[in-house]
Amino acid sequence: MLIVAERLNSTRKAVARAIAERDVAFVREETRRQAEAGADYIDINVAAAGGDEVADMEWAVRAAQEATDLPLCVDSPNPAALAAGLAAHRGPPMVNSISGEQARMAAVLPLVKEHDAAVVALTIEDAGMPSLADDRVRIARAIVERLTSEGVTADRIYVDALVRAVSTEPMQGRELLDAMRRIRAEFPEAHLISGLSNISFGLPSRSLLNRTFLAMAVAAGMDAAILDPLDRRLMSAVCAAQALLGEDEFCMNYLTAHRAEALE
Amino acid sequence: MLIVAERLNSTRKAVARAIAERDVAFVREETRRQAEAGADYIDINVAAAGGDEVADMEWAVRAAQEATDLPLCVDSPNPAALAAGLAAHRGPPMVNSISGEQARMAAVLPLVKEHDAAVVALTIEDAGMPSLADDRVRIARAIVERLTSEGVTADRIYVDALVRAVSTEPMQGRELLDAMRRIRAEFPEAHLISGLSNISFGLPSRSLLNRTFLAMAVAAGMDAAILDPLDRRLMSAVCAAQALLGEDEFCMNYLTAHRAEALE
Repeated sequence: MLIVAERLNSTRKAVARAIAERDVAFVREETRRQAEAGADYIDINVAAAGGDEVADMEWAVRAAQEATDLPLCVDSPNPAALAAGLAAHRGPPMVNSISGEQARMAAVLPLVKEHDAAVVALTIEDAGMPSLADDRVRIARAIVERLTSEGVTADRIYVDALVRAVSTEPMQGRELLDAMRRIRAEFPEAHLISGLSNISFGLPSRSLLNRTFLAMAVAAGMDAAILDPLDRRLMSAVCAAQALLGEDEFCMNYLTAHRAEALE
Repeated sequence: MLIVAERLNSTRKAVARAIAERDVAFVREETRRQAEAGADYIDINVAAAGGDEVADMEWAVRAAQEATDLPLCVDSPNPAALAAGLAAHRGPPMVNSISGEQARMAAVLPLVKEHDAAVVALTIEDAGMPSLADDRVRIARAIVERLTSEGVTADRIYVDALVRAVSTEPMQGRELLDAMRRIRAEFPEAHLISGLSNISFGLPSRSLLNRTFLAMAVAAGMDAAILDPLDRRLMSAVCAAQALLGEDEFCMNYLTAHRAEALE
């Protein structure tokens, strides 16, 4: 499974402070720790730092890439910040995110093409954010067809069918899993990604809910996740899920993690 | 989810000893603890105690029912032991198990009918134990159709599509989940039960694998499990899975378990 490491997100106070103060050491250390814990991409989100997002993104991308050879996932709702982050990025990045909204598609698609980027595709459209599996599948189909018609191959597309909280909408877990299974079947070469943790919003013991839902989502076809790779229990669930689904040859990764005493 | 509590199984040395020594206090205490932890049925298996299985079963059923009003799950490969346990049982029991094997079907079906029992139905046939989802579904269909034609309503049938170890057969997790989804869709009124723990046979950190697989199985339609209800992490996964799938109204059970500090 592909891991997009989420800790360098400016909604975390320590991250916002580090960005505002241009604390290169902090960004490098968070990057290094996440890389060591098994990240495939390091997500960079500076939108909530309160400064000039374009300048902040450019700085943060450079700071993170000083600490790792891993690619980054340049994460912003602001196309100008995405453009700045991508321009500063070395090698093929991931863009977080495009969607089925017309303005966002128009603004972000050229960036994805220009930078040969992988891209997170949110199943949102101008009419809003879907709650039914049917709508998630329909919007995913429209986005994948649009992107592939523009030369973005399916294996660069990471569909995020959007998690909603079960505390307020109890059937959202099922609707999302159903959507994942159907998107996986219809577009076997595309990826399925999820942030997962919104599922537990409003409930206690959130990490228990998050890792339980992760297992369900992997079984439904999810092959990428945006998560904190320093969360040992969550990463243990990732490792166990892959062994259980025949995605870990001879259970080698699982056994290696066990020997490293990383399983919990 | 329906919980069949598995601790009173004579493959555990302490249980075998208690049966051999007619230790009523031990059986009562194990029964009481499992009932308190959320069991719906208490499984009784005396086959490995080394004594007269028929006499042992009759004794164990009486001893357990002295400690609880819960029904028991009378568990034996030996029809004579099943008959003795069922005759000693108060109220409608569960029989563990019938299968698609002709001799077993012929021996156990009359007992199920006589005692208005619920029954665990293993997807085994005379040709053997299936490894593909297709065969599990085919055998399940044959058993359900046979049982319902004999007046055993689908809601009394607990199909066990049989777990095989992923350490030696890496695709068995997927095959079982696929079978569960298809049996659930074809027989919505029947139940799906599983012992689960065989999935991790031969691997370390088995409880991690077992609870991760439990989450996947519940999402695939499993609504009953044979497990140790004193395993707090496994029971936490059960509780989380139900909240995540809209099977716990207002997440009340989950919140209650959280307040009781039972979630782990």
